[in-house]
Amino acid sequence: MTGNDIECLINGEYSVACRRDRDEVYMPFSFIHKYFEVYGKITTTDGEEKFEWSHSYSKIYHPKKKYDPRGTFTTFENYNVEVRDRVKCISGIEGVPVSMQWEPRGFFYPTQIAQFGLAHYSKNISEPEPRRRIIDDSEKNLQNWIVSKDAYMAREYDSKLQTNVIRFSTSDHATSQVWLKLDISQDFVLSLDLLMTSNSSLTVVLQNKDKRETVYLHYVTSQQLIYAQDEHVYYGMGVSPRWRRVTRDLIIDMQKGWALQDRPKRKSPRTKFKISSLILSGAGSVDNVSVSGSEHMAQFSAAARWLRAHQRPRGGWPIPVRRRIHARLAELKPGWHSAMSQGHAISVLSRAYYRTGDASYLSAAKKALYLLDVPSASGGVKAMWMDKYVWYEEYPTTPPLFVLNGFIYTLLGLYDLHIIEGDNSISLAKKMFDDGMISLKTLLPLFDTGSGSFYDLRHFTLGVSPNIARWDYHATHVNQLYLLAGLDDDPILINTAKRWEGYMQGKRAAHN
Amino acid sequence: MTGNDIECLINGEYSVACRRDRDEVYMPFSFIHKYFEVYGKITTTDGEEKFEWSHSYSKIYHPKKKYDPRGTFTTFENYNVEVRDRVKCISGIEGVPVSMQWEPRGFFYPTQIAQFGLAHYSKNISEPEPRRRIIDDSEKNLQNWIVSKDAYMAREYDSKLQTNVIRFSTSDHATSQVWLKLDISQDFVLSLDLLMTSNSSLTVVLQNKDKRETVYLHYVTSQQLIYAQDEHVYYGMGVSPRWRRVTRDLIIDMQKGWALQDRPKRKSPRTKFKISSLILSGAGSVDNVSVSGSEHMAQFSAAARWLRAHQRPRGGWPIPVRRRIHARLAELKPGWHSAMSQGHAISVLSRAYYRTGDASYLSAAKKALYLLDVPSASGGVKAMWMDKYVWYEEYPTTPPLFVLNGFIYTLLGLYDLHIIEGDNSISLAKKMFDDGMISLKTLLPLFDTGSGSFYDLRHFTLGVSPNIARWDYHATHVNQLYLLAGLDDDPILINTAKRWEGYMQGKRAAHN
Repeated sequence: MTGNDIECLINGEYSVACRRDRDEVYMPFSFIHKYFEVYGKITTTDGEEKFEWSHSYSKIYHPKKKYDPRGTFTTFENYNVEVRDRVKCISGIEGVPVSMQWEPRGFFYPTQIAQFGLAHYSKNISEPEPRRRIIDDSEKNLQNWIVSKDAYMAREYDSKLQTNVIRFSTSDHATSQVWLKLDISQDFVLSLDLLMTSNSSLTVVLQNKDKRETVYLHYVTSQQLIYAQDEHVYYGMGVSPRWRRVTRDLIIDMQKGWALQDRPKRKSPRTKFKISSLILSGAGSVDNVSVSGSEHMAQFSAAARWLRAHQRPRGGWPIPVRRRIHARLAELKPGWHSAMSQGHAISVLSRAYYRTGDASYLSAAKKALYLLDVPSASGGVKAMWMDKYVWYEEYPTTPPLFVLNGFIYTLLGLYDLHIIEGDNSISLAKKMFDDGMISLKTLLPLFDTGSGSFYDLRHFTLGVSPNIARWDYHATHVNQLYLLAGLDDDPILINTAKRWEGYMQGKRAAHN
Repeated sequence: MTGNDIECLINGEYSVACRRDRDEVYMPFSFIHKYFEVYGKITTTDGEEKFEWSHSYSKIYHPKKKYDPRGTFTTFENYNVEVRDRVKCISGIEGVPVSMQWEPRGFFYPTQIAQFGLAHYSKNISEPEPRRRIIDDSEKNLQNWIVSKDAYMAREYDSKLQTNVIRFSTSDHATSQVWLKLDISQDFVLSLDLLMTSNSSLTVVLQNKDKRETVYLHYVTSQQLIYAQDEHVYYGMGVSPRWRRVTRDLIIDMQKGWALQDRPKRKSPRTKFKISSLILSGAGSVDNVSVSGSEHMAQFSAAARWLRAHQRPRGGWPIPVRRRIHARLAELKPGWHSAMSQGHAISVLSRAYYRTGDASYLSAAKKALYLLDVPSASGGVKAMWMDKYVWYEEYPTTPPLFVLNGFIYTLLGLYDLHIIEGDNSISLAKKMFDDGMISLKTLLPLFDTGSGSFYDLRHFTLGVSPNIARWDYHATHVNQLYLLAGLDDDPILINTAKRWEGYMQGKRAAHN
């Protein structure tokens, strides 16, 4: 491009090299991108190049029908909790994600565990039934396991499982193994019933189909969460005297091992790897070995069981890491609660009750309400706006933050429980939901920036610069509001959702 | 400019023709201007052209010293109330502006009258003393008036003024006149003492120095505000049995006559016209005729006298026109009050008391406080935020609007009165100021958009789209906050002022 160059002086502060053609001045997009944070890329359709300008990078999902707590949870069928960088791995013992968001050693973050559960519950509904292949069930499907000389393997009747199972034991020699050669592509979720004595292991060998690259996933009886060295990744499964159903997404397990060694995440490993063998070592029993494309309900159940098992007497799931939010706020000390954890947990437990009929899930869900009515200063998660409007706090700071998305997720938990309890119930959950909806409909306008939304109201409570929601949180707000607009016909909900969606395309509230 | 053209697709909605040079795409500024409402123009310095980009079009005045109610009012030395299009004219009888903002026939808008007074008070301080020329005082400065045959003129002693004055009378013939040829450039504020019987007039003849164009400004004894036809403009001065001091800005009077005939406003008429004669007709007396570049204190006094004279028993200045603010709000019926009128009036009256020592001004200022404590629904201007924080309403709607700039102007009125009353007074004004400052410092963050400011909080009270302050109102907010930061060292004031000033250069609050 030739043409006249012209210097453009930006607010009298710095210069940008521009082009000029008669009355028109052309500004480089690289500057516009930085100045306004808009996005653009050159795309090619039918050989023709275009420049696509996007005001935001997030997507809105318009609900097709009224939200139903028995169905998908908001837009969570699109979530992949376990692939996030801040998930250290899926724990071997509990089968739930371990977070390193605020603590690199890893900890159980109830919000994340619940989201993991809700994502898999939702995917189970939205995705087609996966392909499942039984590898060995010691009944109809039998494989030819290779038993090294000093090892032992037999198919025996197990009185607990009431079927035939594989019993194995190997010597202390490293070469002493019971192993099975496989050649499985595409499906990488391995499920099996497992019983191992200490110092035993199940190893899954993955091979890159193109390159000569082998990865060993060792599921061992230690208590250590995860350990990785070179091509070996170890997951501690603990020792249990009882049969356990194990479900592992092998690709996730492999990627987390790489991440632990700071290796870059691989693109589409599911197409490049295959399962090439299983290796048993030590002593134990195995049954019902299968692979499938997904096992969403197993993963959902792991989350639900974790939540039920780890609920404390006051109904909460304390978060064991300190959290520093702003220099002007005292840090949240390990053991703090989050309304978002409580709400998400209620959403998981309500669904678990609905699916299983197990009353212990319902009772855990109801118990989780308690802390929502305890002020933040007393170890709960309740804030009040000007002594008038209740707010369930994602981060129970004093003064409060009034985080919007976490509050709405809590409301959804309340709604879920209320509906699952029975549509006509006059329940505590219903009352808490109704109170919260009044707060939301009253305070929602305070989150409107005129061109986006605030993540929280810290500018009001701390007197600091506002905390604008980045586009993905803004999109979450909009998705949440569309969902709520289906439950409550107050026009503030649908009008705000529409206006806020417009902001994502560059529309702005009018100035006077 | 040649180069590759490339189509730019904006948010998938419409296309803009752009240019491309390798990896860089160049967008036309005409699009950027429309999309983001930023400003730009090509300027030339030393023969070199530059493109100057401005995020906003308004200016911030950083106060050089602490605000003092005896001094200029905020940045009003930069205001020119009477040149605004929404000022119909300066009334002949009262010498104050007549507004046609919401009513084309014109009405006395106390806010505007007070701003007119405060602007002139401020200019009187900030501008150098004007040049003043006495034309005729019947004592030391005498002119050769031309008296037509059937007319009469004499210099006689007046017992009221206790000096010699001009007495004149003319017959009913149009040609019967007492007139004075003049040739005065540059200074166009005419002052004189005047006493006219009915059907008399003073005419000032202005001539365009370049073109052969003559304008006749007739100050007549009718009650009609203003009338204009072709080159004749008439201002009704009424009939008064007593001497009056008349001060007229002739250029303003001429321009308003043109505006009334929908003629375009002239650029720099002060350099193009001269005063070519004065004509007296009818019967009356004249003395102390002079011209000057400005007569700010006379104009300030006109505003102060008007406010003192037109205050109602409850201390207010009712606004006689209906005002429709939003479809969701009942209109304000004629007779509504405005906290901004009350506050500005207090600022004028306090200064008038300070300058004259006339206690009637002080008492009027104090009386003006009353309506600030009467709820809007009861004819006053007081709103409460969540039953906790008082707000003095520029527009006393139900529900309230919480207009920011009008509220701060009211606070300044309260501060002015408090200081003028005496620094150590524990006055009602001080208490109302302190209460208001608590409200301001608490609610100020709610006006922060993260990239500008809200004009009011209608999005909260009405649940509608936010009303963003355009840049000149935003600049007013910033100027007001810098001023208040000099009176109150709570960091919220100075921090907000600085952050908001940054927004005018394109800075934005961070997103998460």
